[in-house]
Amino acid sequence: MKLIIAVVQDKDSHRLAQALIEEELRVTKLASTGGFLKSGNTTFLIGVDDEHVNRVLNIIQHNCQSRKRLMLPMGDSADAYPSPPVEVQVGGATVFVLPVERFEQY
Amino acid sequence: MKLIIAVVQDKDSHRLAQALIEEELRVTKLASTGGFLKSGNTTFLIGVDDEHVNRVLNIIQHNCQSRKRLMLPMGDSADAYPSPPVEVQVGGATVFVLPVERFEQY
Amino acid sequence: MKLIIAVVQDKDSHRLAQALIEEELRVTKLASTGGFLKSGNTTFLIGVDDEHVNRVLNIIQHNCQSRKRLMLPMGDSADAYPSPPVEVQVGGATVFVLPVERFEQY
Ligand code: NI
Ligand code: NI
Ligand code: NI
Repeated sequence: MKLIIAVVQDKDSHRLAQALIEEELRVTKLASTGGFLKSGNTTFLIGVDDEHVNRVLNIIQHNCQSRKRLMLPMGDSADAYPSPPVEVQVGGATVFVLPVERFEQY
Repeated sequence: MKLIIAVVQDKDSHRLAQALIEEELRVTKLASTGGFLKSGNTTFLIGVDDEHVNRVLNIIQHNCQSRKRLMLPMGDSADAYPSPPVEVQVGGATVFVLPVERFEQY
Repeated sequence: MKLIIAVVQDKDSHRLAQALIEEELRVTKLASTGGFLKSGNTTFLIGVDDEHVNRVLNIIQHNCQSRKRLMLPMGDSADAYPSPPVEVQVGGATVFVLPVERFEQY
């Protein structure tokens, strides 16, 4: 048994939760902020048997991969010359796999 | 030293916190949602010496055991025939016991 | 690789986050309540290489040390005799260092 703690950008959080639930994995989400990832993020707790760790990591990677997007900076609408689009990093996940000594369900 | 992470239904959360505090156990509660348990839930972090793990698990089991309750579905008050009561699962806890390499208090 | 979980009084939380970010440590904050520390608190998740654990613990200790402060109790403004100042404990941190079996970033 392992406990996977995954810090995920809010942008990917709903999609990841759906993907994990479709695979009948059990997930708890904690409200979290800042740090590992630049914008708002969500921390997932996922309990899995050892043989399913790679499968869960694949699902996280597939749904939360860091990628670049072109975005228009929010400019002053009175600007004569609107700002050009800029490339920003979105998504990404930071994942810890922790050993579990005991697991109980009541 | 162990760190016990317990995901508990909101319905049982206040009662569990009271029971742990009465036993002078130190607890932190994290706001959490969905997944392990169907409705709203709370994640407890409980730090304990190895010899107290069983005592804490007993307290969690005693206060959070999954049970069935008869509930009236919320119906349209204009219904000619009110819905019969349905059996729903309430309570329950998912508990991870994690090894701790170091514990410090400042 | 270790995962440091630190429960810190809200009063020290912003200062600690700043100190960790200045050292280029990556931090996630979870909203948490009660228990380990009397008033509102914040739970930090900090992922660090083994050789940096002591440095992070020093930063936490430096920014969150428990100390006494004189505070005026909030009295009834109609009281003829205002209450004298009382000594209260502020700050402090409860810290768990957990082993990490795998660490991934996507
Ligand atoms: Ni299986
Ligand atoms: Ni004892
Ligand atoms: Ni280094």
